[in-house]
Amino acid sequence: MSTAEVTSIRPRILTGDTPTGRLHLGHWVGSVEHRVQAQYEYDCFFIIANVHALTTRAEESAAVREDVFQITMDYLAAGIDPQQSVIFLQSEVPAIAELTWYFAMLLPFNRLMRNPTLKTEIELKGLGDHYSFGFPMYAVGQVADILAFRANAVPVGEDQIPHIEMTREVARRFNIVYAGVNPQAGDEAHAEQGVFPIPEAKMGRVSRLSGIDGKAKMSKSLNNAIFLSDTPKQVKKKCGRIFTGRMAADSPGVIEGNPLWEYHDTFNPDKAEVEDMKARYREGKVGDGECKMRLADVINELLEPMRQRRAEFEADPDKVLDVLRDGTRRANVVAEQTLAAAKAAMKFDFLDRKLEF
Amino acid sequence: MSTAEVTSIRPRILTGDTPTGRLHLGHWVGSVEHRVQAQYEYDCFFIIANVHALTTRAEESAAVREDVFQITMDYLAAGIDPQQSVIFLQSEVPAIAELTWYFAMLLPFNRLMRNPTLKTEIELKGLGDHYSFGFPMYAVGQVADILAFRANAVPVGEDQIPHIEMTREVARRFNIVYAGVNPQAGDEAHAEQGVFPIPEAKMGRVSRLSGIDGKAKMSKSLNNAIFLSDTPKQVKKKCGRIFTGRMAADSPGVIEGNPLWEYHDTFNPDKAEVEDMKARYREGKVGDGECKMRLADVINELLEPMRQRRAEFEADPDKVLDVLRDGTRRANVVAEQTLAAAKAAMKFDFLDRKLEF
Repeated sequence: MSTAEVTSIRPRILTGDTPTGRLHLGHWVGSVEHRVQAQYEYDCFFIIANVHALTTRAEESAAVREDVFQITMDYLAAGIDPQQSVIFLQSEVPAIAELTWYFAMLLPFNRLMRNPTLKTEIELKGLGDHYSFGFPMYAVGQVADILAFRANAVPVGEDQIPHIEMTREVARRFNIVYAGVNPQAGDEAHAEQGVFPIPEAKMGRVSRLSGIDGKAKMSKSLNNAIFLSDTPKQVKKKCGRIFTGRMAADSPGVIEGNPLWEYHDTFNPDKAEVEDMKARYREGKVGDGECKMRLADVINELLEPMRQRRAEFEADPDKVLDVLRDGTRRANVVAEQTLAAAKAAMKFDFLDRKLEF
Repeated sequence: MSTAEVTSIRPRILTGDTPTGRLHLGHWVGSVEHRVQAQYEYDCFFIIANVHALTTRAEESAAVREDVFQITMDYLAAGIDPQQSVIFLQSEVPAIAELTWYFAMLLPFNRLMRNPTLKTEIELKGLGDHYSFGFPMYAVGQVADILAFRANAVPVGEDQIPHIEMTREVARRFNIVYAGVNPQAGDEAHAEQGVFPIPEAKMGRVSRLSGIDGKAKMSKSLNNAIFLSDTPKQVKKKCGRIFTGRMAADSPGVIEGNPLWEYHDTFNPDKAEVEDMKARYREGKVGDGECKMRLADVINELLEPMRQRRAEFEADPDKVLDVLRDGTRRANVVAEQTLAAAKAAMKFDFLDRKLEF
């Protein structure tokens, strides 16, 4: 069983988001910017993980639906080209749910429950003992998301590395048990002889962007985020609210740990200007207001083409559904091929099927 | 959301087997006999749970495949009419895997892990700490097996009652959360207003048949079973081996706890003959051999029409696959309807799809 028949010349990337609200600048620098660039170099599959969103919001499925459309518009606005890349809905790819079953059989229960990402999320979300069975199952589901597309690389934040490690383990184990790959074999042998290539984690440019409160990571729930869909006025207002800790406009300013300069460093392409402003800021020769308004201009320049593209889709919601339908079709072509190859390796290829959207 | 559109006039039954080998007399009296009778009274769906078979046999998937064909032939041989009933493969119904996800989100992790059936199985199978994540996931999968077909009744052994209780809980919770059914409502209101009717457990005629060793429940793995597919000669030989504990042919025999009489009581339709033999046995006036050979005749009479039907299918394996293909098609018509109704209730009805086999 070779992966050759479904691997295009370009390596394949699988990544995506759980729809929990609109995307913000933290998403942009952490992943979305990279995706926009990657789509001409890689075969890109972007998953909107609406089923996984239910792990913490099972009773808010209607709100998850709304977030699906918002995040799709954010993707398109950000410059993801639906002709080039595949944007698809997790809930509309049955092969993911089916592969989840087969992978769950290969994953020791205790191995999965000890996954540090899972433990951290339980703590972060304050779930205590009150989580659904879907919560740990989600970790197997992520393995299936990636392997259903036989992705070669998965762009992730640092916190997701243990999930990718587990995905690599499952891919190896499947290939060894069902495709006769030598247990000692390296990744190349798995790619050539196995059903699944062994995917690699790829880190984004900036793995953590502070919120405008300067305290925590930018996050919708902490109300400290600048969204990709904010208006010029909202961006100005939020830039004005950035917490710099400075007492007076002429007192010497601190650069380190100051979100104002973290943002300038991240978003202002004019490095000379930034260095000049920083020098004057340190000496108390420029006020917060001026630096903040310059930042607002820089961010608005970045967001303006996104706003224009978003307006097009907001005016015509059917276009968004068309993008999802087309992406889901293309995603299923690949995922159905993978499932068929996996079942053939397992001798579970009982019947052929055809799935149409 | 009403279940009316998919409910035929006859109530629906969902039951089946995990393919772990050929069926034996324990299966016959515990469930299969009842299924053969039930198929003209109920709308019957018989699931061959080949995915669940992997919970303990992940590395033997090819053997599971072989067992799938054996068990299908046993069903047909036993008298299940594929024109009347639906025999289908779990692995070929994607809606089951997809519903498993949605139900996992509604089931508290601790509730599931405390399920007594699960705990007992871990002990019985000596799994200790060494089981896959698929093992507890299986319990959610059983909920999906049943609810995917909106079954009204599930024939089960006593040990499976906690699983049915959990299925009832999930059905209620889904209907309350997504279909607006009143949390105080009774089963009738759920059937009328919910997506899922609340299924009831139905017990078989004999929930436990001893093995020929007289020690344990009849079981393939204990080598104490008479299979539905045994030849007349095998049946005679096995009846001869029944352990009665009697020392001599003319010593007074014990009836109670003696598998020889348990079998006569269960399989011999001539009750007068049985009572007469028992009386003579108690007094030491009839030998084990005579009673055993009479039993062999009785069992062979039961099995003879099964052997004839089995021979037809063994001679033409494509016929077996045709039965599974037809059953899988019919099962998917219902399961796809259920999944669509569930997703509509959740507002997760993003795209329509068509699945063909």
